[in-house]
Parts: sequence; C-alpha cells; structure tokens
Amino acid sequence: MTERVKEIISWYESDNPGTRMNIARLLNHGRLGGTGKLVILPVDQGFEHGPARSFAPNPPGYDPEYHFQLAIDAGCNAYAAPLGFIEAGADKFLDSIPLILKLNNHDSLHDEKDPLSSVTSSVDDALRLGCVAVGFTIYPGSSAAQIMYEQLREIAKEAKSKGLAVVVWSYPRGSDISKAGETAIDVVAYAAQIAAQMGAHIIKVKLPSDHLELAEAKKAYEKYEVPIRTPAERVRHVVQSSFNNKRIVIFSGGAAKGDEEFFDEVRAIRDGGGFGSIIGRNSFQRVHEDAHKFLDTVMGIYEGKIP
Amino acid sequence: MTERVKEIISWYESDNPGTRMNIARLLNHGRLGGTGKLVILPVDQGFEHGPARSFAPNPPGYDPEYHFQLAIDAGCNAYAAPLGFIEAGADKFLDSIPLILKLNNHDSLHDEKDPLSSVTSSVDDALRLGCVAVGFTIYPGSSAAQIMYEQLREIAKEAKSKGLAVVVWSYPRGSDISKAGETAIDVVAYAAQIAAQMGAHIIKVKLPSDHLELAEAKKAYEKYEVPIRTPAERVRHVVQSSFNNKRIVIFSGGAAKGDEEFFDEVRAIRDGGGFGSIIGRNSFQRVHEDAHKFLDTVMGIYEGKIP
Amino acid sequence: MTERVKEIISWYESDNPGTRMNIARLLNHGRLGGTGKLVILPVDQGFEHGPARSFAPNPPGYDPEYHFQLAIDAGCNAYAAPLGFIEAGADKFLDSIPLILKLNNHDSLHDEKDPLSSVTSSVDDALRLGCVAVGFTIYPGSSAAQIMYEQLREIAKEAKSKGLAVVVWSYPRGSDISKAGETAIDVVAYAAQIAAQMGAHIIKVKLPSDHLELAEAKKAYEKYEVPIRTPAERVRHVVQSSFNNKRIVIFSGGAAKGDEEFFDEVRAIRDGGGFGSIIGRNSFQRVHEDAHKFLDTVMGIYEGKIP
Amino acid sequence: MTERVKEIISWYESDNPGTRMNIARLLNHGRLGGTGKLVILPVDQGFEHGPARSFAPNPPGYDPEYHFQLAIDAGCNAYAAPLGFIEAGADKFLDSIPLILKLNNHDSLHDEKDPLSSVTSSVDDALRLGCVAVGFTIYPGSSAAQIMYEQLREIAKEAKSKGLAVVVWSYPRGSDISKAGETAIDVVAYAAQIAAQMGAHIIKVKLPSDHLELAEAKKAYEKYEVPIRTPAERVRHVVQSSFNNKRIVIFSGGAAKGDEEFFDEVRAIRDGGGFGSIIGRNSFQRVHEDAHKFLDTVMGIYEGKIP
Amino acid sequence: MTERVKEIISWYESDNPGTRMNIARLLNHGRLGGTGKLVILPVDQGFEHGPARSFAPNPPGYDPEYHFQLAIDAGCNAYAAPLGFIEAGADKFLDSIPLILKLNNHDSLHDEKDPLSSVTSSVDDALRLGCVAVGFTIYPGSSAAQIMYEQLREIAKEAKSKGLAVVVWSYPRGSDISKAGETAIDVVAYAAQIAAQMGAHIIKVKLPSDHLELAEAKKAYEKYEVPIRTPAERVRHVVQSSFNNKRIVIFSGGAAKGDEEFFDEVRAIRDGGGFGSIIGRNSFQRVHEDAHKFLDTVMGIYEGKIP
Repeated sequence: MTERVKEIISWYESDNPGTRMNIARLLNHGRLGGTGKLVILPVDQGFEHGPARSFAPNPPGYDPEYHFQLAIDAGCNAYAAPLGFIEAGADKFLDSIPLILKLNNHDSLHDEKDPLSSVTSSVDDALRLGCVAVGFTIYPGSSAAQIMYEQLREIAKEAKSKGLAVVVWSYPRGSDISKAGETAIDVVAYAAQIAAQMGAHIIKVKLPSDHLELAEAKKAYEKYEVPIRTPAERVRHVVQSSFNNKRIVIFSGGAAKGDEEFFDEVRAIRDGGGFGSIIGRNSFQRVHEDAHKFLDTVMGIYEGKIP
Repeated sequence: MTERVKEIISWYESDNPGTRMNIARLLNHGRLGGTGKLVILPVDQGFEHGPARSFAPNPPGYDPEYHFQLAIDAGCNAYAAPLGFIEAGADKFLDSIPLILKLNNHDSLHDEKDPLSSVTSSVDDALRLGCVAVGFTIYPGSSAAQIMYEQLREIAKEAKSKGLAVVVWSYPRGSDISKAGETAIDVVAYAAQIAAQMGAHIIKVKLPSDHLELAEAKKAYEKYEVPIRTPAERVRHVVQSSFNNKRIVIFSGGAAKGDEEFFDEVRAIRDGGGFGSIIGRNSFQRVHEDAHKFLDTVMGIYEGKIP
Repeated sequence: MTERVKEIISWYESDNPGTRMNIARLLNHGRLGGTGKLVILPVDQGFEHGPARSFAPNPPGYDPEYHFQLAIDAGCNAYAAPLGFIEAGADKFLDSIPLILKLNNHDSLHDEKDPLSSVTSSVDDALRLGCVAVGFTIYPGSSAAQIMYEQLREIAKEAKSKGLAVVVWSYPRGSDISKAGETAIDVVAYAAQIAAQMGAHIIKVKLPSDHLELAEAKKAYEKYEVPIRTPAERVRHVVQSSFNNKRIVIFSGGAAKGDEEFFDEVRAIRDGGGFGSIIGRNSFQRVHEDAHKFLDTVMGIYEGKIP
Repeated sequence: MTERVKEIISWYESDNPGTRMNIARLLNHGRLGGTGKLVILPVDQGFEHGPARSFAPNPPGYDPEYHFQLAIDAGCNAYAAPLGFIEAGADKFLDSIPLILKLNNHDSLHDEKDPLSSVTSSVDDALRLGCVAVGFTIYPGSSAAQIMYEQLREIAKEAKSKGLAVVVWSYPRGSDISKAGETAIDVVAYAAQIAAQMGAHIIKVKLPSDHLELAEAKKAYEKYEVPIRTPAERVRHVVQSSFNNKRIVIFSGGAAKGDEEFFDEVRAIRDGGGFGSIIGRNSFQRVHEDAHKFLDTVMGIYEGKIP
Repeated sequence: MTERVKEIISWYESDNPGTRMNIARLLNHGRLGGTGKLVILPVDQGFEHGPARSFAPNPPGYDPEYHFQLAIDAGCNAYAAPLGFIEAGADKFLDSIPLILKLNNHDSLHDEKDPLSSVTSSVDDALRLGCVAVGFTIYPGSSAAQIMYEQLREIAKEAKSKGLAVVVWSYPRGSDISKAGETAIDVVAYAAQIAAQMGAHIIKVKLPSDHLELAEAKKAYEKYEVPIRTPAERVRHVVQSSFNNKRIVIFSGGAAKGDEEFFDEVRAIRDGGGFGSIIGRNSFQRVHEDAHKFLDTVMGIYEGKIP
C-alpha cells in the first residue's frame, strides 16, 4: 500500500478492518490506484431520468454489461449503480472492478418540492453481490431530510458492522433552498459537513458556485474572509469543511458540457485538494472510444501528467 | 432445457438456484414451454373492479376453480391471482400449473389521484401455497410510489432469498401523469426500467401508444430519433429499456376489444421482441370454449404458426 | 361430521388441520350444528355505541356473563365480542360455546368520514382465551382501508398459522360512498369479494338493498341482467360473489325492527343460499325470555321447520 | 385474604397468577387493605402541568421522596408516577408501598385540540423498578385515540404476560367533545366501558356531571330512565357500565376545591358502589400534616367510620 | 471517590453499576473532578449551523482532533459531539477524555416552526466508540415533541440497560412558544422537569430569563412568590424543579458575548446551586490559547478560587 493510501486509511480509525480494507480497495484499484485520487463511474440515470434520456445518446448503454466494461476499460476506481444493474453483471465481472450498490433512488415521474428518495436495496444485497460499498443519497434542505438521515443512520450502522464502506451523495434540495442555492458554496460545504458528521467514508457533492445562500452563513464568510472566489478555492473550502481534509470528498460534474470546461473543473478539483470525480453522463453518453479517451484525459489531469 | 430457456436463465446470474429454477418452471410450462414466450392468465379483477363487473359476463368465473382449469386447458405458462383465489384451488390443482401469488391489490371503492395498493398477502403465503413467484404492482408517478417501492424492495429481497421469482406489474399513474401519459411510450419504457432496476425478474407493462408525455424525454426521443412509430417498434424500445432485452417483459392488453385488433397487438409484441402476454378479461370473460379458442390463436401467433 | 359440514370444510383446502377443525367447531356447535347454517351472537356494541345505548334496554346485558349465557341458552353457534367481554367469561364458560375474539373496534366518540377501527387485541389473546376464531372489521371505501387491509393480512396470516379461523366483518363506508351505497347490492357483493380474496373463512356483510352505487358496476348488472330484485336474489348474488358459494357468508340485520320484518329477512337469507345470521341488538336488547324465543324462531326458519 | 378481595380477584379469571397477585397486593395494602376500597396517590402533575404549578403550593413536593413518604404515611394503597419520580425512590422505599408506573404523559407546552400522550416508559421499566402495575392514559374522542388504543393494546398484552396489573386513565377529550362533555355522564360511562373492553384491570375516570353529550345516547338515557340525577346514581351507572360492577373503577377529583365538597364526592363514590379515589393535587399540594389529615377523613368515609 | 460525588451518585439509585460508574467518570474527570461541578465541551454546531459559521472564526476547529485536544488541555469533564466528530478521534484520544455521543441533530437548511431533530447515531455506536454517555435533544413545545419523547424513551432504556449515562438537552421551541418564552423561567424549569421525569441523568437547559410565558404557571409563580428575580435565584428554581437538586443540571450560554457578562452567568450558576456549564461557541471559536484561558477562569469560578 502506498504511503498516501495508508494516510487516508488512518483517518478512518474507528472502523473495523473489513471496512478499512474496502476503502483501501477503492483507493488501490484502477489507473489512479495508490495515488489517493478516484474516478468513479455512476450509472443511476436510468432510474433517475428514464432510459431514453440516459441511453439513447449511446444505445449500447441500455445494456448493463456495457457499464461494467466501460469502468474496467477506462481504469476507474469503482462502478456505482442501483440493484438491477449490479445484479445483471456482478457475476460475469466478478472481482474485475469494485462495486458500489446505490441503495436509494428517485425517479422523475412525480415532482416534489421536497424530495425523498426511495430505498430500493439493502446492505445485505450489497454483501451478496460482492460490493465494497453502499451508496446513499440525502437531500439536506428537504422537509423529508429527517427520514433520509434516519435511513442513512441505519444503513451506515449496518454497513460498518458488516465491513462495507459508506458513500454518501449529499445534494441540497427542497422548498427552502433556491435553485442557485443548491450549488451555493455555503450550502455545498454544509452538505459535506452533514455527510461527514453522519459517518460517511466518502462524500459526493456538486462542484460549488460562488453564490452564498444562507443569510447567517453569508455574514461569517464575509467577516472571516473565507476564500471562495475561484473554483479551486471553493473545492478547498468544501474539503476543509469535511473534517479538515480528513474525509474523501469527490465531485460530480452534472449535465454534459464542453470538454474543456469539464477538464478545467477537474483541474480545480485537483488543485483545490479534492479527491476526485464521479462522472456519469459525461462518460457513458459518449460512444465507448470517446468515453475512454475522455476519461483518459481526466485521469491524466489527476495524475498531474496533464497540467 | 432448450437453448433459449438456458439463455434467458443466464441473464439472472445473480440469483440463487431456487429462483432460477422457478423462472425456468414458468418458461418451461404449457404450450409455449421452451420457446421463451409466455402467456399468463391473471385474475385479480374481482378485487380490482368488483365481482359483477368481472364475472357477470361469464358467470362460471365467480368460481375460483374455473380459472385454474382455464389456465390449464388453454396451456398457459402460469396463473396469477390474489390470496383468496389461490388458496381456493392450490391444493386441488396441485402441481398442474405454475402459480403466481399477487401480493398487493387495489379496489375501486375509493378513488385516489395518487393510488397506493394494499399489501394483502406475503412471500410466506406464496411458499405455503406452492407458488413459483410473487407478483407486485407499483404505480410509478404516484405520490405513494415511494411506499410501494420500499414494499417491493422488502418483498423482492425476501422472495429471492427464499427461491421465488419476482413479477412486477409496473403501471404509471398519479397526479403528475395525464391519462394518455399512462400508456405513453416514454412513460411505459421508464416504468419497465424502474422495475428492472428494482430487481424484477419478469416485468409486466401496458402496450404503449406513440404519445410522449415527459418534456425532457421528448427532446431525447426526437434528437436521437428513437423508432417508436409502429407498435412493434415501441415494444422493441420497451424491451431494450429493460436491460437491452435481458429481462422478461410481457404486455397486457387492457379492456376487451375486437379479436383481430387484439391479435394484431400480439403480433406486434412478437415482432418487437416482447416475451409474451398477460391476458385477463379478454379470456376469462368469454365462455370457456371461446376463451380456449382465443388463447389458442394467441399462442399460435407466438409460436409463429399463425403469421 | 355431517356430509354438509364435510363439504364446507373441503372448500378450505389450503388451511391447516387446526384451522379446519375450528371452522368445523363453529359449524357443529349449537342447535344448528351440522346443518351448515350458523347463528352467531355478537356483542361489541358496548364499544361501538357506548354502554347505555347498548344495554339500558335490557340492563342484565351490562354483565359480560349474561351474553355467554344467552348464546348458550339459545343454542347459537358462537359468541363474538371484544377482549374485555371475552376475558370476563372465558374461564367460567370454558368450552361451553365457541368464542370469536373481535380484534378491532371503533367507538362513536370521534366522527370520521373515512373511519379506521383500532386494533384492540391480538391473535395471541385469542389463543390464551381459548377462542376458535378471530374477528376483524374492514371498511372498504374508507381512505384508511389500506391500513385495515394490511392489518388484516398480518392478523390472518398469524391466525391461520396458529390454527384459528378468520371472520371478517366487511362494511363499506367512507367519503366516496353514499349512505345508500353502504348497503347497495353492488357494493355489498364487492365487499364480500374483497374479504374472500383476502383469505377470510367467514364473511359478514349487511343484507343488501337493490340500490346500485358504482357507475361502472351498474352497467354490468344491467347488461348481464344479474337478478337482484328480491332479497333472496340479492343474497344469492352476494354468496355467488364469495367464490361461487364456497365461502361461508353470514348477514347482519342492523338496528332493531319489527319481528316479522326480521324473520322475512332470515327467510331471504335462507332461500338465497346464505349461511346464516349474526344477530346482536335484536337479541340482547330484549329480555332473556323474549330473546330466547326470538332466536328460536330464527333458528326454526334456518332449519326449515318454520317456512 | 378477605372474602371481598377474593371476590374481586375472581372477576379477573382470565389473568395469570402473577397479575392476580399484583391486583391483590393493591387491594391488600394500606389502611383500606382488605376492604375492596382503594385510595391511590398519583403525582404526574410535574410532567402534565409543570413543576411550579404542581409543587410551589407545597415546596417539599419538588422532592420525589416526599411523595413516596406521603403515600406511606397516609396509608394509601399505591403510589403512581412517571418514570423519573419512580426511579428516584424505588430503591429507597423498596417494598414499602405498591408502585404504579405511569407509562405515558402529556405536557402543557403544546396545545392540541386532539391530544396524544407520549409513551415515556415501558413495561420492562415497571418490572425493573418493582412495580405492581402499569398506568396508561387514553383520550377517547381524540382523533389520535386509535394510536393510544393500539399502544395500550401492546402494553396491556405485555404487562399481562409478565404478571403486572393494568390501570387505565380514561379521559374523554378531543375536537368532537365539548368541555362539559368531558365529564358528561354518558361520555364518562362510555370511557369506562372502552377501558374495560380493552382489558383494563383498574379504571380511572372523572366524577361525572349530569350533562348528556351524545344525541343518540341521550335518547337511550331518557327512554329507559337511567337514574343519573344524584352523584351517587351517576357513580353507580359508571360502575355498572364497567361490566356490571365487575371491574375496579376509581374516581379522580380534579382541581383542589373546598374540603367538604370533596368529602361529599367521596361519599357519593362510596354510596354509588365506586371502588375508591385517586387523589393528587388535593393531597400533595397541602403541607404534609394537612394532607395526612385530609386523607384520613377520606379513608374514614370509605371505611364507613365517617358517615 | 469524594463524598460529594458519592452523594450525587446515590441519587441514581435505580441505575445499574455500569451506568453509575459512567456518571462517576464524568464527575471525576478533569480539573473539576471530584467537586461535583462539570464543564463540558460540546461541538455539534458544524451540523446545527454549518461549518463556516462554526469554524471560520477559528479555522483549526474544522479539524475534529482539535476539539478533543481543547477539551483535554482545558481540563473539561467531557467532550460531546455527533457521530462523525467522535469517530474521527475516539481511537487517537482513547481514554483521554470522557465522550458523550450526541445521538440526534438538526440542521439549518430547512426551517420548521415545530422542529424535529434527526436521530443520526445509536446507543450501540456510543458503545463501540467507548463513550460514557449518550446525548439527546428534545424540543418540548414542538408539535413533534411526542416523536422525540418516544425516541428518547427507547434510547434511554437501551442506554441504561447497557451501562451508559443519558444526557438530555431540553430546549423548548415550537409554534405555541414565543421567542422570549424559549428562555422564560417557567418554561425552562418545566423543560428540566420533563427531562428529569423521562429519566435523564444529566439535564442541559438554557440559562433562564425572568420572563413568565404560560398564563397558568404565571399565576402560581405570583401566588406563591417563587423567587426568580436574580439569575442565581432562577438557577436555584430550575435545579429545584429537577427533583429538588437531585439531578445534575448544567446550563448553556448560547451565542458568544462579552467575557465578563459570561463569567457573571457562571457565578449565577454556581451561586444558584447549578452543576456546571456546557460551553461550545464561547470556547472553540476562540484561538486555542484564549479558549484555554477563558475556560480556566470559568473553572476557577466553579472552584470558588475566583469569587
């Protein structure tokens, strides 16, 4: 194990060896293995946005095996998906790529101001499918947040006792938060803090903007001149807000955009001390070759081979 | 076992031998046994619509034994019904026809915009009655969908661990979906995807129309020119949306209609790569002889003996 | 055991010997024992309507022992009551009369459009008190029906596994049903069907009127000319709607009325193929001697000794 | 054991010896021991009304030990209080006075039209603290009554199986009941009946007024000329409504009032066949000596030594 | 053990030796060890107010290890925090400082009139992390108070059976309480009483003002001339309201304010018989040296070395 991975694992001092081993497996797998950086392929858009919106741009993606193969070919650290997609390849791709079972999901057929994800699989499902971690989404700011927090508590407790790692998607949403507020720096840093306080090993947040949403927080940012002007500074603040850089925080890029713009975001994550990216639509909605090349560049940036 | 059945079973690689055997029993039983096609007789209309609406057209149908016999005589792959109907014949027709216990039901005495089915029996009931599978309805789009998803998760987990197959009726309904939207191609494909992601082995949806309901989805269908003009194309898209044809998807015909119209629908299912039909009112509301003849034609179409 | 009782028991083929024995005990006890007909004394009005409304007309009825004795003296098949009343005599009248523990109850101190009964005792209470069956009320049509259906499912599953019979009071009520609709023939037949589908061994409904409540059902009754003009025809339709006469269906008479009118209703139940009556206020609100004589006539009608 | 206590215990024929022994301990303890009459000291006002309203009138009452001592000194049959108060003296006053653990409580900091008490301790707490009984409040008439009934069912079932007695405070309240209705004779008798039907061993109600609240009940009281003119007649009617005097029914006096008025109420309870009093504020809000003397008079009335 | 600690422990007579030992560990640790006084460092503001509002004033506080060290250096009796912060240092600072795991938390991203905290960790988490106590917040006055009371009951029962102490933060809030009412003397004393009645070993309330919020309580305070004019008198009344000084009651200071003002509050707590302080923002938002000095003065006041 590299010194960096040893260091990262040392932060999870309260966990049992099983969980620590599974965090290490995530950090040691794939092209970035051992660097302490991660690129994860998540494919839950079929559930979240529907099949055609997700896979019509690159129809091989309708096939669950495609995504296992893409994650393997591109050298990702892990592949994350809901129950059905994982069940459909866990045996065929046995031990080829660390798997993260996404335990809750939300579809777009019903629109709620204060969303609540449905728990669609379990820690025991993750175990029987050979996963290294469970994934769980919380929506801080939703009036249903308490339900999701308490579901997460139960799941995290069970996962930790059974030697799995816990990955939390922390996405602020709800009737008290503006659209801009969902990616506001104060809100994203707060969302990362909540996930960390709830015991997440790996935290996934959106790349934040320089917007400040909460009046009380705004005062503090201004009074103490917290540096949040550049994307890298904001990444640094989010990572600092996650136990002073002692929790693995990765960032998602959201909807497809221009490649250069995307690579700049990756540079910001790298330069701000972020731990990596979770890249869904920007990879699997391209044809396989393009996706491979695209992820190659992303990993090159994280490796520092591409400035 | 035929090669086709072996192929289908291979898609369910994460399941235990007990569950895989029960899926095989469904595929191997009856006149279409071994072809990979299924025709299932479901009789839950007594609960869903009331007894007279369901059985007055053919009064022998008031008797639970009638439907077992009809399914056997017509050579169906399986018979699906709620607890009471299954209890009333499971012993008499022991091992004569694979049984699917329908675990939840909804009646028409209370009208809700966002429906929630009641769980009316259990996985253990299915076991004590010798069933090969449990059936469960979800209403994606209902504000109560989360409740049903979480019930399904528990039931599917238990059924799989106890060696049963899981059949999901995925019927979009609810306050955010128009009447036309309930059978819109984008919505039906989405409903099939959700069922597949939740781990269903067999998915039952309605035959879709060419309507597009969801604004975001519409853009994708148009941009990527997804072929959805003919019924067969739409069937093909729904099956593709179910893990690229790697899940068993069967279609229901809805209310009684002209026979030729119905047979054309069956041809579309066959030609679009669908796995079969689930035919309730169109069969049991006819007198026995007519129903037999009607199902004979349906199966002939699936066999390809009738063009 | 008489041939008729053997025949009736044969319909419950999926049940274990314990449950079948308890159904037989109900059918074999009392004056109508062996005929396949039942008269049951239910006394839950103290809870449902309050003590003075229930017992002031015949004050000995305040005493729980009175009702045990009345049921025994009159030769009823069984006595049904809530926990407190059963606890207060189960030991004294040990093995003198089959007991049905009513597991849920509703009081009149709070008025709801969509009623929900409270579960007030349990299957294990029924066992420790030596009962042959549990009783449970559902209100199909109530917005709370799903809660009661799911409670019934749990209770029925437990009762059946522990060798008890399940008696379901199926009383349509709720905001979508008119007052007349509560006893409409289509609604009562539907309520009986729901109870049967949920696995009830014995179904209790109200004697239906010729009103048709549900628009879709009305069409079917008219198109197929279902005979529902006379009380006996309506009883026949309800029994047919209960698995083609293969479930025990008994009828309640409701509030006290003229004796002759009541006896005519009993004749209709008998002539329509109903299985008997459950008679509360019409018996225990009379002085003991009158009640005895009244029930004597009722049983004479069921025996056919009184035309 | 006196004949009277033996007679009372005989009414609880369905209970196990452990529970019957604990009912006997309540009846045999203190100055009224063996007479079949009870005076119980309840101190839950600290939770229900707050500390200063409860204890400022007699500040030693802030101390939990004070109330144990008062109940012992005055020769009460039992002392009833919430978890904290019982925990604070159960060991010190070991076996000196039968204890009733009050399992639910309601505070006055939030005002609801339809109140719901919070369950604040458990049957197992009662066991570990050496109590003879659990106490539980229901508010018949509240829209939350069903919740409390179902909590009571679970608690009563557990308590009975573990050999404890069950004391039910049955206090009608809620949006459908007028202020006067809360102590109306028809409503109080109904509340006693509900508690009895739910399996309570000891029922606590408020002393009723001659008001009639419920229209349907009013008709019955008038038609059958139920005697409810004097307080003693109303007590008699409530006791009759509790299984014809076969359940222990005790009465609370409510807020402090003139002593003579209070003693007259006690005489009415005695003369009407009530089983005793539960006296809180009227005792512990006096200085110890006065309280002692006051309770001395009350017990003298119950003994019949004071006319 | 000092006599004072022995005396305090004697009040918890109903607890098992494990729990009593853990209360003693809290009382015996740190600079005030053995005096019966406590100063506890709580750091849950990251969850409650967000990271920047909490830690930007003193950025080393972003690091979870910082707070363990601060509590140790300052000689606090214990350190209290949510799951994530405790997990991040429990092993490194093994046995250096008693730990209190805060089991529920509330964030500021969603604003509710009647707040409900989320349960974010469990008694078993406290055990696996080596804590001496669990902490739990209730909001008496919230319409969600019943939920929190029942959560507390379950948690307290489990914690006591497993040998842990129970610390309750009792903070009145909700739609029926005015802003001033949240710290009104009658309301704070009531909140302390509720926590004590629910079985809390240690009660944390806010330092009360002389406002009287509740009309009924106001009458009692005025009639019985309860002394509440000075801060020390109010502390005395709160402690009296907590079982006549027989429960450990500590006070929080709220938002940062002038040091002298703060020290005067500490003097009032000391002089009124309070057991100590729980000091969060006033300590960890200062640089380490200042915080150390600040807490040094606070402890000096409690020791009586500073008048």
